[in-house]
Amino acid sequence: MSENLIGVDIGGTKILTVLTDKSGAVKKRVEAPTTCSRPEKILSSLCAVIRSFGRSRSVGVGIAGDVDSKNGILRFSPNMPNWVNVGIKKYIEKNTGLPCCVENDANCAAYGSFVIDGERKYPNFITVTLGTGVGGGIIIDGKIYRGSTGSAGEIGHITINPSGPVCGCGHRGCLEAYIGTAGIKNIAKKIGFKARVVTPAVIAKAADRGDRKALAVYGKVAEYLAVGVGGLINVLNPDMISVAGGVANNFYLFEADFRRELGEHTFATPLKHVKIVRTKNIKNLGAIGAALIFPKEGD
Amino acid sequence: MSENLIGVDIGGTKILTVLTDKSGAVKKRVEAPTTCSRPEKILSSLCAVIRSFGRSRSVGVGIAGDVDSKNGILRFSPNMPNWVNVGIKKYIEKNTGLPCCVENDANCAAYGSFVIDGERKYPNFITVTLGTGVGGGIIIDGKIYRGSTGSAGEIGHITINPSGPVCGCGHRGCLEAYIGTAGIKNIAKKIGFKARVVTPAVIAKAADRGDRKALAVYGKVAEYLAVGVGGLINVLNPDMISVAGGVANNFYLFEADFRRELGEHTFATPLKHVKIVRTKNIKNLGAIGAALIFPKEGD
Repeated sequence: MSENLIGVDIGGTKILTVLTDKSGAVKKRVEAPTTCSRPEKILSSLCAVIRSFGRSRSVGVGIAGDVDSKNGILRFSPNMPNWVNVGIKKYIEKNTGLPCCVENDANCAAYGSFVIDGERKYPNFITVTLGTGVGGGIIIDGKIYRGSTGSAGEIGHITINPSGPVCGCGHRGCLEAYIGTAGIKNIAKKIGFKARVVTPAVIAKAADRGDRKALAVYGKVAEYLAVGVGGLINVLNPDMISVAGGVANNFYLFEADFRRELGEHTFATPLKHVKIVRTKNIKNLGAIGAALIFPKEGD
Repeated sequence: MSENLIGVDIGGTKILTVLTDKSGAVKKRVEAPTTCSRPEKILSSLCAVIRSFGRSRSVGVGIAGDVDSKNGILRFSPNMPNWVNVGIKKYIEKNTGLPCCVENDANCAAYGSFVIDGERKYPNFITVTLGTGVGGGIIIDGKIYRGSTGSAGEIGHITINPSGPVCGCGHRGCLEAYIGTAGIKNIAKKIGFKARVVTPAVIAKAADRGDRKALAVYGKVAEYLAVGVGGLINVLNPDMISVAGGVANNFYLFEADFRRELGEHTFATPLKHVKIVRTKNIKNLGAIGAALIFPKEGD
């Protein structure tokens, strides 16, 4: 049997399809835009890409939203309002002849990181994704922990200050309200960092040039992230934590502060034990993870 | 083989020993004071109690502190400074002829509650213990989740406000700093509740008489508890949560507020799914849990 695995990351703006081996090494990758029209049209193009990859063992699909991973159905996705109760697994299996599984994208990122960053050696593993939103996935005992209704890992919606700013979810003081993209922009505004368009990447470029206000913004990101992650370390006592998502491209700017701040919120023994890294492959992590879930986690 | 199980809860002031069946029903109980002198003396008296219980299958011991549950050794206990690297399992097995396991007391409480409150039907289960300190234990997939170095479940040391009051652990704004016994006393002081001696029980008695300030104290307890537990629900998406510990005797005073406040910090689906109860047996929970761990969790 072929040892090639196919992984797909369906996002709001693009679909990434990769061919990997079981170590997560990427052999081929194809990126296509997601048009928000009919899901069948997108899935049909996707199946053509999958077939073009030649012989492989399985297809794993990661997608943001509420996924029924047992049946391979996307119930609902906030980014793609047209996708409601889409039987992704069934469609792909019928049109490619390959076994398929579907999983929440944050769980895929966590599983991908567990393999490529942790080499499957850190059984209790957390990935925190920093981007427009803040999310995450939890691996317990080497397996994805989905919780009881499949929504575990909502790390961005830990309350880190009940009188904090209002979050996109409607609640106050969630970690995401502080360090999601909108939160980082708010920090920049408060600190007085100015640019034509303020984004985490623009702030990072200014920080690279030594801009003090830009550096101060990432100092605050470190502080808030440490409150949320510190709580997770005290509660879950994990072996390893990886930081992923677009904003993790700037991890070098806040890593030192983050590690120091963790000492303010975490017991010494679990903090000493836990290994913290930025993921090696931010760009392909979700798709790689989707590919890798299959041989270990398939139903 | 006898179906009787023995459970022991070694606390800072007393040792409780119970005889139960596998449903957790208590048939006998013996309570003895803990003198903080030589551990061997205490263990020797304990073994006499165990032998007096007649035929039984096993002994489970729960104790506060850093427990090496694999080897049955108490490494260190904050309540009993004389107990350092005590081989409890070895001592009890030698002196009673029964197989013994040793576990952190909060894990015992969680496992006990998983059986007697959840009837083993809620595989992802959290117990929050409210007392002098705030602690907890986590059951995942029907098994105690200890984390990577055995310290998982430190629910009291989630930071719920990074600029909050200083906690006994030295950090700021831990849940325990707000609603551990000392925290509740501080709330009472701020609200202006007065009594000769202010304790959670005294405040509860006043609340029973309709004292508005006393009721307001428990309203605040509900608020803070909801911040911490809400985060746990978003991250772990459990099936069931039980509230235990001495302060849970007053749960009827803050249950309604707590449930309402949870809605301010938790996503709707996992909140709707999770069953929340006060444990049925606050007094014996740790000892019952210690007894029950054995047949399911023994090494």
